[in-house]
Amino acid sequence: MIKNVNHVAIAVKNIDEGLRTFENLLGIKAAYVKEVPDQKIKAAMFHVGNMEIELIQPTAPDTGVAKFLESRGEGVHHICLEVDEVDNELQAMAAKGIELIDKKGRMGLAGKIGFLHPKSTKGVLIELAQKV
Amino acid sequence: MIKNVNHVAIAVKNIDEGLRTFENLLGIKAAYVKEVPDQKIKAAMFHVGNMEIELIQPTAPDTGVAKFLESRGEGVHHICLEVDEVDNELQAMAAKGIELIDKKGRMGLAGKIGFLHPKSTKGVLIELAQKV
Repeated sequence: MIKNVNHVAIAVKNIDEGLRTFENLLGIKAAYVKEVPDQKIKAAMFHVGNMEIELIQPTAPDTGVAKFLESRGEGVHHICLEVDEVDNELQAMAAKGIELIDKKGRMGLAGKIGFLHPKSTKGVLIELAQKV
Repeated sequence: MIKNVNHVAIAVKNIDEGLRTFENLLGIKAAYVKEVPDQKIKAAMFHVGNMEIELIQPTAPDTGVAKFLESRGEGVHHICLEVDEVDNELQAMAAKGIELIDKKGRMGLAGKIGFLHPKSTKGVLIELAQKV
């Protein structure tokens, strides 16, 4: 079951510029900024009331986020939906005919996570996340 | 002050197909579907836990949403942030150097609303909304 929207992630070319822009816009400081080496990103997280807004900057050119920036420019990269149990939910999505990027959950910033393929979801990259 | 994320809006070519896709994905029915003649869109709204996911289909070719679909295809169109008082907030944003699309609030689906220009917000179209 989908419980909540956990976060919306925005791809930026430079995390420091992104931070300046969103700290100015939102009127708050990022809760944290960290590098996630196995995902080859730097991420910044803002707590905005009911959910999080995340900025992500690729740290290597051979990544999905870097390719997204090249082809589409800066903007919303994905939406993360919170679920109880990510492996079950991925299996249920596949059974409903939704194409998966991740067949099984793996560890990410938002918990145990898995991505659905945007061609099954009207061009929207959707991450499912189980808090751990 | 920014209180919450009110909704994320996804541009779709056909609202009926969008509804099928997102009802299947989210496992819930849309709360409502309605045509908004002065914005030249059909909109569907899903209540997902802490916030809303909105689908929007343009009903005329001379609209921002139609142009977005032409140039970028289906996907996330905008993020709506809830504020206490939209006119004050738009003025505050302008004072902070953020370019506006709407200088003053106007009535929209989410209340009294105004848009910021995506060139000031890392390519993300941001709507501010005051519940009315």
